[in-house]
Amino acid sequence: MKVSFIGMGTMGSPMAQNILKAGHEVTVHNRTREKEQTLAQAGAQRAASPQEAASGADVVITCVSDTPDVESIILGDNGVIHGAQPGTIVVDMSTISPIATRRIAEKLGQKGIKMLDAPVSGGSEGAQKATLTIMVGGEAAEVDKVMPILEAMGKTITHVGSIGAGQITKAINQIIISGTYLTLAEGLALGIKAGLDMPKIVQALSGGAASSWILSNRSDNMINNSYPLGFRVRLHYKDLRIALDTARELGVNLPATAFVEQIETGLIARGYGDEDVSAIARSIREASGLE
Amino acid sequence: MKVSFIGMGTMGSPMAQNILKAGHEVTVHNRTREKEQTLAQAGAQRAASPQEAASGADVVITCVSDTPDVESIILGDNGVIHGAQPGTIVVDMSTISPIATRRIAEKLGQKGIKMLDAPVSGGSEGAQKATLTIMVGGEAAEVDKVMPILEAMGKTITHVGSIGAGQITKAINQIIISGTYLTLAEGLALGIKAGLDMPKIVQALSGGAASSWILSNRSDNMINNSYPLGFRVRLHYKDLRIALDTARELGVNLPATAFVEQIETGLIARGYGDEDVSAIARSIREASGLE
Repeated sequence: MKVSFIGMGTMGSPMAQNILKAGHEVTVHNRTREKEQTLAQAGAQRAASPQEAASGADVVITCVSDTPDVESIILGDNGVIHGAQPGTIVVDMSTISPIATRRIAEKLGQKGIKMLDAPVSGGSEGAQKATLTIMVGGEAAEVDKVMPILEAMGKTITHVGSIGAGQITKAINQIIISGTYLTLAEGLALGIKAGLDMPKIVQALSGGAASSWILSNRSDNMINNSYPLGFRVRLHYKDLRIALDTARELGVNLPATAFVEQIETGLIARGYGDEDVSAIARSIREASGLE
Repeated sequence: MKVSFIGMGTMGSPMAQNILKAGHEVTVHNRTREKEQTLAQAGAQRAASPQEAASGADVVITCVSDTPDVESIILGDNGVIHGAQPGTIVVDMSTISPIATRRIAEKLGQKGIKMLDAPVSGGSEGAQKATLTIMVGGEAAEVDKVMPILEAMGKTITHVGSIGAGQITKAINQIIISGTYLTLAEGLALGIKAGLDMPKIVQALSGGAASSWILSNRSDNMINNSYPLGFRVRLHYKDLRIALDTARELGVNLPATAFVEQIETGLIARGYGDEDVSAIARSIREASGLE
């Protein structure tokens, strides 16, 4: 299949690599053009704009940071909408507003262009190892068509509902992890202050009701007070704001999520926005007098 | 080994059964004596008091609800301390205060009686299936001696440190699960209000960063708004109060844990204290106008 991939960031670049490895014809585009080099060296074509990338493609994938970026890439001047043909499938794998997603899909639909929203979870490790969790919203016919492409990037791929449902599912994911990060940080801080052998404690708890991906994969960061990426605080913060906006619209009460969003506001203000989201532990450590 | 087991509750009764199945000589005692019947029919001896249970035993296990119960069973009139011989090992598998634990151990130590604290995680399912997580505090020599008994009841058994360390580890466990329960409830409420197919959403998220024992095992309760046991709200609440007291003593900041303790205070006040702890979702559902 002819696949164009727009957005060569921490996630997009390895995801595009995996599509290329699966044997598809790949064209890449990035606003900062130098970031196209890695993929070009691996055998991908380069396009000068989203419009050019969309031209002749069967599938156009976007994977960028936020709602305005996706709007501009798809609907703006030199946007995907000006290059894509009727029948082209646009797959947005960014994490953005479900409401904006439906609006973009409607505009594409007026030109016969199909859209799916397919945000991912699993971080940069998942992008590299092609083990992403992908949550897909849209029509079944299009989901079936792009499934081989999605399978090149992810392990658990679920068609969760109509357009926008992928983004709501991603919001649910970001909400759920918030509380786990926070009380993991609280629990570990208690153990550290009590002088316990923390790696042993994590081991002891990993077989029971406290077991989670976060306990297994992010406790070390919190114990060592060092937060290499992973997934940036400022991106999780952006996702929580989408989640909170969506919840306000639907009338859903998210007190712990709002609390974590406030902790992250503070982390970003103190210059920790580019650390891994496990840096939430900084807030608890500092409030407890741990260095 | 001659093992006496005091406390035939939801946890203690199946735990004692598993020790009996492993081929040990078991004596049981319970304040409400009828509760000894199940084990007696399975081949255990019965004792009329903790003192009588301790008399002649190699190991005395206590598994009851709260700190005052353990104090009374071990140190009170007709308590374990009056029946046990020097060299007897008392293993408290209740979840109680780490501070009280050290005080009890000291009093036993004055008579040459050894003590371990070995609280468990894994709920009634874990107790029945002998898959409990057991966190043991105390001296290595005693831990080694009772290991065959612990192995009859649990799967992950970790010697986490000196006396009281097991209770602190259990507190850490109860802290960690608090946030996961709460934001799982928040995320699911968002999906329910958005009209998504929730079992499918849980499936989609179970391969990624949001994966946890609680997501896998308690989402259905929250989706169905029905909270069969499991693990009672009032017991988790009791454990969080121990955790918060311990944290206050050590100077550790637990904002999310305190928030969940407050939600549980409200659940108990409204008559939900004997539901599973996943009933935390009631608080979010009600605040969001979901029945």
